[in-house]
Amino acid sequence: MKVHYECLACQINQCQKIVELSTNDLEKRKKAMIFSAMLFAKYFNEKSIPAIVGSDIFLELYEYLGVDDPFREYKDKSNKLAQKVVEDLKRKVKIDLKTALKLAIAGNVIDFAVGYEPEKIEEDILGMLKEELYIDESEKMFGMLRKAKILLYLTDNCGEIYFDKLFLEKIKEEFPELGIYIAGKEGAIINDATVKELEEANLDEVGKVISTGTRIVGVPIDKVSKKFLEIFNKADVIIAKGQGNFETLSELRDKRVFFLLKAKCKPVARELNVPQGAMLCKTL
Amino acid sequence: MKVHYECLACQINQCQKIVELSTNDLEKRKKAMIFSAMLFAKYFNEKSIPAIVGSDIFLELYEYLGVDDPFREYKDKSNKLAQKVVEDLKRKVKIDLKTALKLAIAGNVIDFAVGYEPEKIEEDILGMLKEELYIDESEKMFGMLRKAKILLYLTDNCGEIYFDKLFLEKIKEEFPELGIYIAGKEGAIINDATVKELEEANLDEVGKVISTGTRIVGVPIDKVSKKFLEIFNKADVIIAKGQGNFETLSELRDKRVFFLLKAKCKPVARELNVPQGAMLCKTL
Repeated sequence: MKVHYECLACQINQCQKIVELSTNDLEKRKKAMIFSAMLFAKYFNEKSIPAIVGSDIFLELYEYLGVDDPFREYKDKSNKLAQKVVEDLKRKVKIDLKTALKLAIAGNVIDFAVGYEPEKIEEDILGMLKEELYIDESEKMFGMLRKAKILLYLTDNCGEIYFDKLFLEKIKEEFPELGIYIAGKEGAIINDATVKELEEANLDEVGKVISTGTRIVGVPIDKVSKKFLEIFNKADVIIAKGQGNFETLSELRDKRVFFLLKAKCKPVARELNVPQGAMLCKTL
Repeated sequence: MKVHYECLACQINQCQKIVELSTNDLEKRKKAMIFSAMLFAKYFNEKSIPAIVGSDIFLELYEYLGVDDPFREYKDKSNKLAQKVVEDLKRKVKIDLKTALKLAIAGNVIDFAVGYEPEKIEEDILGMLKEELYIDESEKMFGMLRKAKILLYLTDNCGEIYFDKLFLEKIKEEFPELGIYIAGKEGAIINDATVKELEEANLDEVGKVISTGTRIVGVPIDKVSKKFLEIFNKADVIIAKGQGNFETLSELRDKRVFFLLKAKCKPVARELNVPQGAMLCKTL
């Protein structure tokens, strides 16, 4: 997916968030925003893929600001809260494979770090469980998983990864012979889950945790490691969580790839031809 | 006032609004946003004054898009609704000079074009009338007006100008000897009131309508016309409405200038050392 017209303002808002998390010095913040304007003029063009151009810009901004992981605290909070919410949900709700799939999508939507009470989040999530998926190819996906040898699961954000773990536990129960790889980022980029964070959340209990080999959001196919690409190529089914994975993989039209996401922004909704906010599980 | 770190993202959001109002063609919108990114890299620097750099960028963007007044419809709606609200308020509330001053500030805040019912707007405005001004130098201002020969009134947005008219009617009643000049922009820029729009709203009934001589928001002192500058220089009191006039005049520290505004954004609030949202009438 190439950038849409709304991507510029959205990514500049993200730069402002990065700057705010990185320094309290107003003059330094101002210089960093002016530096950001220069980066957009340099990198942002009609052929840009949002997740990739955004990551390139954010990483240069990190370097300019002298920070490596401005979302560290945000991610810690998200993980802690999501872990608690998943534990509570496991006690309260009967979770089958399909419910776990919907929870994995719902887990992508919640901003765990903004200070909601766990009770409020659980309420929101239970509400989402009642919604039907706008496009639902999950039966086809489960059918393919039944015959598959290898599943590659592409994670998205911290917090959400606890919902991914729950979904992967159910997948493992249902398809015990399946070889599962779970990919995270090589290093910190916004609130995406790194390999290290996947390991800390014990995702290695449900599959082999691997790195995409890059800090860039999503799966930029010409920048991932050779090792990752080997697994990508040999996988029978690929579950791609969230918008970043969609943006970077949509043009492949690879029938092995199932996108699990809520179309949070207008560009992604427009690209998928679904209403903004639609939840879906689909191939392209 | 120089730009603060938040100004970049805010002005890019305004570019997106301009682009949306100017064309429905998604490809044209995308090209225009990429063009905007280039403009910010070119013009936006630490010494920029937000209203001026914003106007320069918006006007180049207008030219690129081939539009002269993208807010035309928005401004018409605002004027129509504000006129109705002011007429209703005149019937319902006893309006003295001080009340009219507060209404002139309140009129700056309301976004008349977003589809509220007049009743809801009146309710909001009556609520604001109950609030005290956070900084209130209105007695000093009225004292100066009592001795003044010439008042220059710097308008801000369409819609709001009907509240300005009401305030100017009260000023005229209270200080019948006062010569009143009312300044608008030379041509269309975002939703600011042009000379033509001031005349259409019959502001010439309460004073002499003049042009700043430029389309730039506020009063960019080195870009206004000679004629405007003469009136600016000979005025005894200058009432400057809204943030744009504040941004362009704050550095003069001119004791004749009374800023009437609500500090809508964080940068202006920070510059004035008041809480965001504070209403004030003050000199610098």
